[in-house]
Amino acid sequence: MNDLIGHSVNTIDTPALVLDLDAMERNLHTMAAFATQHHVMLRPHAKMHKSAELAKLQMAAGAVGVCVQKTSEAEALVAGGVHNIFITNEVIAPSKLARVAALTRVLVPVGGKLAICVDSIEGIRRLAIGMNEGRPSSGVTSSIDVFIEINVGQNRCGVEPGNPAVALAIEIRKHPALNFAGLQAYHGKAQHLRSPDERRDAILGAIMAVQQTRALIEAEGIKVALVTGAGTGTAPLEAASKLYGELQAGSYLFMDADYAANLPAVGQPRFQHALFVKTQVISVHAGHAVCDAGHKSHAIDSGLPKVHAFSSRSELEYSNGGDEHGILTPAAGCTRLPSLGSMLWLIPGHCDPTVNLHQVMIGVRGGLIEGVVERIIKVDARGALT
Amino acid sequence: MNDLIGHSVNTIDTPALVLDLDAMERNLHTMAAFATQHHVMLRPHAKMHKSAELAKLQMAAGAVGVCVQKTSEAEALVAGGVHNIFITNEVIAPSKLARVAALTRVLVPVGGKLAICVDSIEGIRRLAIGMNEGRPSSGVTSSIDVFIEINVGQNRCGVEPGNPAVALAIEIRKHPALNFAGLQAYHGKAQHLRSPDERRDAILGAIMAVQQTRALIEAEGIKVALVTGAGTGTAPLEAASKLYGELQAGSYLFMDADYAANLPAVGQPRFQHALFVKTQVISVHAGHAVCDAGHKSHAIDSGLPKVHAFSSRSELEYSNGGDEHGILTPAAGCTRLPSLGSMLWLIPGHCDPTVNLHQVMIGVRGGLIEGVVERIIKVDARGALT
Repeated sequence: MNDLIGHSVNTIDTPALVLDLDAMERNLHTMAAFATQHHVMLRPHAKMHKSAELAKLQMAAGAVGVCVQKTSEAEALVAGGVHNIFITNEVIAPSKLARVAALTRVLVPVGGKLAICVDSIEGIRRLAIGMNEGRPSSGVTSSIDVFIEINVGQNRCGVEPGNPAVALAIEIRKHPALNFAGLQAYHGKAQHLRSPDERRDAILGAIMAVQQTRALIEAEGIKVALVTGAGTGTAPLEAASKLYGELQAGSYLFMDADYAANLPAVGQPRFQHALFVKTQVISVHAGHAVCDAGHKSHAIDSGLPKVHAFSSRSELEYSNGGDEHGILTPAAGCTRLPSLGSMLWLIPGHCDPTVNLHQVMIGVRGGLIEGVVERIIKVDARGALT
Repeated sequence: MNDLIGHSVNTIDTPALVLDLDAMERNLHTMAAFATQHHVMLRPHAKMHKSAELAKLQMAAGAVGVCVQKTSEAEALVAGGVHNIFITNEVIAPSKLARVAALTRVLVPVGGKLAICVDSIEGIRRLAIGMNEGRPSSGVTSSIDVFIEINVGQNRCGVEPGNPAVALAIEIRKHPALNFAGLQAYHGKAQHLRSPDERRDAILGAIMAVQQTRALIEAEGIKVALVTGAGTGTAPLEAASKLYGELQAGSYLFMDADYAANLPAVGQPRFQHALFVKTQVISVHAGHAVCDAGHKSHAIDSGLPKVHAFSSRSELEYSNGGDEHGILTPAAGCTRLPSLGSMLWLIPGHCDPTVNLHQVMIGVRGGLIEGVVERIIKVDARGALT
């Protein structure tokens, strides 16, 4: 792969995951400036890119650290030199909690920090046991920041707002290795509500639930230092809330087709597509052409990819051709089919699981037509499921 | 991973891809016996398991070779010691055709063989150029078996039946490095038609199209040595056709939830689920539980996974919880939710792209409850897209 560096974008074999570095850097700086302007911290979700190199780029641009979903993602990023990581998920297996505890000890000498979510009394006790068990043998004393995940409408993980959350805060404080750090209030379902009004209503509900919960916890004499959450779809709402102190948005960096389908709110930062699957036409027929990118090259959980059109005359619709093929037909008002061997660019429906299908992202400078390969970015935490 | 070998199935961390070796071996022998009984060759599709170890197991049980979809899959399997491979797809890029040609030369000294599909005159010419270009420098003379892919109803790749296919056979014969080997007639859409009657009607149409095409080609004095095709859903029909000489079924080895939803025809061989995603409950709520396997651990293109039930009282429904989570609710008539930390087994909707999400398959002997890890099977061609 490294022999591609310095060569034209045309030399990239297909299918391949290609990153438009110029677009990505504009997105990077747009979000960094947005967070600064709103006086909130930015902790981008690295489950999206799974890359230590990009995590460090985000931190160099002002991010306080990154989020991940899995213990093994945290391990991959720590190994790549990222030292401030928040596992925004519940970890229950004793074997994984031993690994979490080991990571906290690895991070002590480099001044790093690990955080994690809990949503149950049993989860807190398991975490405390995991933190204590490895301690005597290693000789290093470490602690972990613990956020209580509140269910603010996603109805997935997360304790219910109000008194159930208060009980967890009281439990966390019983364990010396656990540092109660605040509340995680991420509303996943709100991210892709298409209209600004729907997104606002959903996040207003989250804000009210968190305000009430925070007040109840602080009435117990327990300080709630931080409320963290938000994704690319709703970040302007959390940023303006005066309640959230940290944004966890991730997709803004690459911007997929699903997020692009959201209707923007007034004043919302705009992001550009930076992630593409380059593909080639391998078969042409009377009414359709077939390209070499199927759903082993891009995730389809949030819809099929869009074909990037360099001109309005060349618009194509992509439909599902199975694991290894895509079916291309002319969009309404267009008639031209691409010829055998033509190169096309797909905008994935959902960037996170698309990146996970690839070993590397090929970073291109100067655009998709005349650009040059600048660097190969490894997907360090690819397949990091545990 | 290798330190798991010899340990109980309970020690496998989650999520993980687990292979029930006893069930897999029953499937292996059932299909091998079925092919023998019908006097057809078996060339299983290795795009499903992407593993040289399993390809060699299939060949040891009587398969003549394996199929793949991509040049890079063929490269990975050749590197793993598999020497008879059919790329059942069109390859168009000159850089890939150079790699195809190189593989044919690598296989000469070991007595191996490579085959490929074409569906256009330009594709044949590109293949011939690719085969000729590397030849003088290497000093090894090689050829490649070429199958004309016929569109028998999939409407994806494949030349139309009849005269368009005859023109391709005539063109192939002009190129000394290309050995016209027969017709590929795979009807992908027919595999998951639920009723036996629908599948029979679809394959009868394919058979008629291929018979007519074969007669037209043979009227030109060109022998059609082999018709190859079929998947796990329709293999009994092609096997009984007296036309198909080779079956390409792949999924039978692991048997996914989508194939299990087909209504079986009389006399059709039965296969058992052998591939599972082991997962763990990480969060429990009033009406649902959450497990740690989302669509980064299993593909959802052919539907969500089913939860394997060890008893009728413990049936659960799986619904989509995003990249890293699954939502579990009691099935109709059941009320019991699993407790925090419980282990569950998911039957993936579609085995091929599910395997592609994992580095390894953990092979277990003795069942999912009391079994022991016997071996770790590498997914050699994972992410082999080019």
